[in-house]
Amino acid sequence: MAAAAPPPPPTPAPSAPTGLPDSDSTPVGHPLFTRIRLATPLDIPHIHKLIHQMAIFEKLTHLFTATESSLASTLFKSPPFQSFTIFLLEVSAHPFEKDSNFHSQSFTPIERIFNLDHTIIDPEAETFKSGINSDVVVAGFVLFFPNFSTFLGKPGFYVEDLFVRECYRRKGLGKLLLSAVASQAVKMEYGRVEWVVLDWNVNAIKFYEEMGANVLPEWRICRLTGPALEAYRDAI
Amino acid sequence: MAAAAPPPPPTPAPSAPTGLPDSDSTPVGHPLFTRIRLATPLDIPHIHKLIHQMAIFEKLTHLFTATESSLASTLFKSPPFQSFTIFLLEVSAHPFEKDSNFHSQSFTPIERIFNLDHTIIDPEAETFKSGINSDVVVAGFVLFFPNFSTFLGKPGFYVEDLFVRECYRRKGLGKLLLSAVASQAVKMEYGRVEWVVLDWNVNAIKFYEEMGANVLPEWRICRLTGPALEAYRDAI
Repeated sequence: MAAAAPPPPPTPAPSAPTGLPDSDSTPVGHPLFTRIRLATPLDIPHIHKLIHQMAIFEKLTHLFTATESSLASTLFKSPPFQSFTIFLLEVSAHPFEKDSNFHSQSFTPIERIFNLDHTIIDPEAETFKSGINSDVVVAGFVLFFPNFSTFLGKPGFYVEDLFVRECYRRKGLGKLLLSAVASQAVKMEYGRVEWVVLDWNVNAIKFYEEMGANVLPEWRICRLTGPALEAYRDAI
Repeated sequence: MAAAAPPPPPTPAPSAPTGLPDSDSTPVGHPLFTRIRLATPLDIPHIHKLIHQMAIFEKLTHLFTATESSLASTLFKSPPFQSFTIFLLEVSAHPFEKDSNFHSQSFTPIERIFNLDHTIIDPEAETFKSGINSDVVVAGFVLFFPNFSTFLGKPGFYVEDLFVRECYRRKGLGKLLLSAVASQAVKMEYGRVEWVVLDWNVNAIKFYEEMGANVLPEWRICRLTGPALEAYRDAI
């Protein structure tokens, strides 16, 4: 269940009001080249920083205890999509070089061009630089894993976190990340994609409903954690 | 996320008002011998019937499309606890024979004796018979799988379904099943156990809170499924 992390409420870029940007369109104005690829253990420092930013955004830094070490010991232990999986969002002002390292049988990176009215100034470009000799930066991520519907008798995906760094928001990148998960679910013949949202976050709810999701009004999350969970150590 | 399946609201048996039954106590009255073990592919026919009963209980049979075949093709594909995992609850009027088949490095079956005021008449004993030459019957199950908290930087368990057959309810067996998952989470140093409940199911909410869980008031589940999900097939 979500670590108190409501996805930001991105909205499609004005230049692509009816859906996802067209990869075949000729870049005009200020093109932002974007790529979604599977994260690797080498990305853990960036992922850790993104999660920390998410905790700040949520005003929940007191709950943030993840370290690079704890992430390294729990992520990337299974093949992609079989357990915890991360899609990383990278952006660049220039077309991506072909990087065969990121192509796998599991997932071919998704590339899209967003045509923006203005160039984005990224004050953290150096911190989130991806690779050595390029202007590619990490702009966001989505972490998801399989869940299971007993009624459908098949798996789905649960999206734990969706995060786009501040200067890249409201351009359709959140929609691109979530769409990538939905598309992967369809490819795998999974039955559902689910996530959670705060009931007062009307912008996010509107955004998700426009993407085709239903918000279930009656279900509440129960959480057993901390000392209350620890009490079960010797209870059985 | 839960397949519209709120766990039943069991309450501890009168003979064990302060917690789980003591395995060392001498059986008095009408002992019910219970065992929690990992389910195996051989249990699929029983599991399928239990899920169907759950759909009837929830008045959601129109959503029930699982078949023994769909369960067989999606469950038991990973080692226990790494993906979708089922604990099966078996009961008997007699002590369980030692069955080394059910002992594994992953999980040692849990046995408890419940001392009841009356013998339980199980009208479906024949249907849910477990094994050939015994009076052991399958009484319920819990299906759970790992989830992940990015803030904690570690996994937890998500409980998708908890179900006890009608004649075995209100004796503490639901609590025993959920406690077994919580205990396993603690053993694996996981950070949380989570599940969902319907907001109007006050008995279940009270029961879960008594078990130490918090019910989170603000989070809502978003679900993308059916044609709305299918629309993402070629969207990216």
